[in-house]
Amino acid sequence: MSSTLGTGATSEIEVGADAIEASRVNGTRVYNTDGDNLGHIYDIVIGKRDGRVKYAIMSFGGFLGIGEEYHPLPWEVLKYDERQGGYVVGITIDQLKDAPRFGAAERPNWVDADYGRRINDYYGVAYY
Amino acid sequence: MSSTLGTGATSEIEVGADAIEASRVNGTRVYNTDGDNLGHIYDIVIGKRDGRVKYAIMSFGGFLGIGEEYHPLPWEVLKYDERQGGYVVGITIDQLKDAPRFGAAERPNWVDADYGRRINDYYGVAYY
Repeated sequence: MSSTLGTGATSEIEVGADAIEASRVNGTRVYNTDGDNLGHIYDIVIGKRDGRVKYAIMSFGGFLGIGEEYHPLPWEVLKYDERQGGYVVGITIDQLKDAPRFGAAERPNWVDADYGRRINDYYGVAYY
Repeated sequence: MSSTLGTGATSEIEVGADAIEASRVNGTRVYNTDGDNLGHIYDIVIGKRDGRVKYAIMSFGGFLGIGEEYHPLPWEVLKYDERQGGYVVGITIDQLKDAPRFGAAERPNWVDADYGRRINDYYGVAYY
């Protein structure tokens, strides 16, 4: 582990300290600021060209996949919390009820900018 | 599909046009500029906090996981090619032989900045 504190390498530390395989991000729990466990990360959506993580797909409810719903959350609303070992979002369970979501048999068209804008608008995040 | 051409929304088109679930990026073939099939994407490595895709882990060789090797490639060296439906990298098969790699039983320490710098140096990509 390199020690680069105090060398102005803040961004380097941030880059190195939290790198993880996407396959291991899946399954990470998502909490709200009240400590409620809202669900877990089911998958992430990335831009093939820009290499930016755009959405975390959070699974919510259901049992063994039955009745499970998926909420795409703009990556920007998720804050990783080392202490809880999960992501924290400023979303109440009530707010999730009206949020964009899809069922297990559906697959959103991630290429549709209108859909992307609807998700980001819901969470007050700029779409770009 | 929204039509935003000519509205200065170039970046928006790029964002929307290539969004895909990380789980579906896995398996995408990787070619070099000579058209050789070098392998396929096995996983990607992202920064949990900055949401940036740092590495694509390319699997190379092997059969049913036996003798398979994994090469972490800086995301910046991969160019997605719609026509081939895969990524193209400017790397020869010979160059891969000396490239940073790991076996099926190993797992690199992605948090180690020295390791990250070694990968990026090998491919001539700035580490940050």
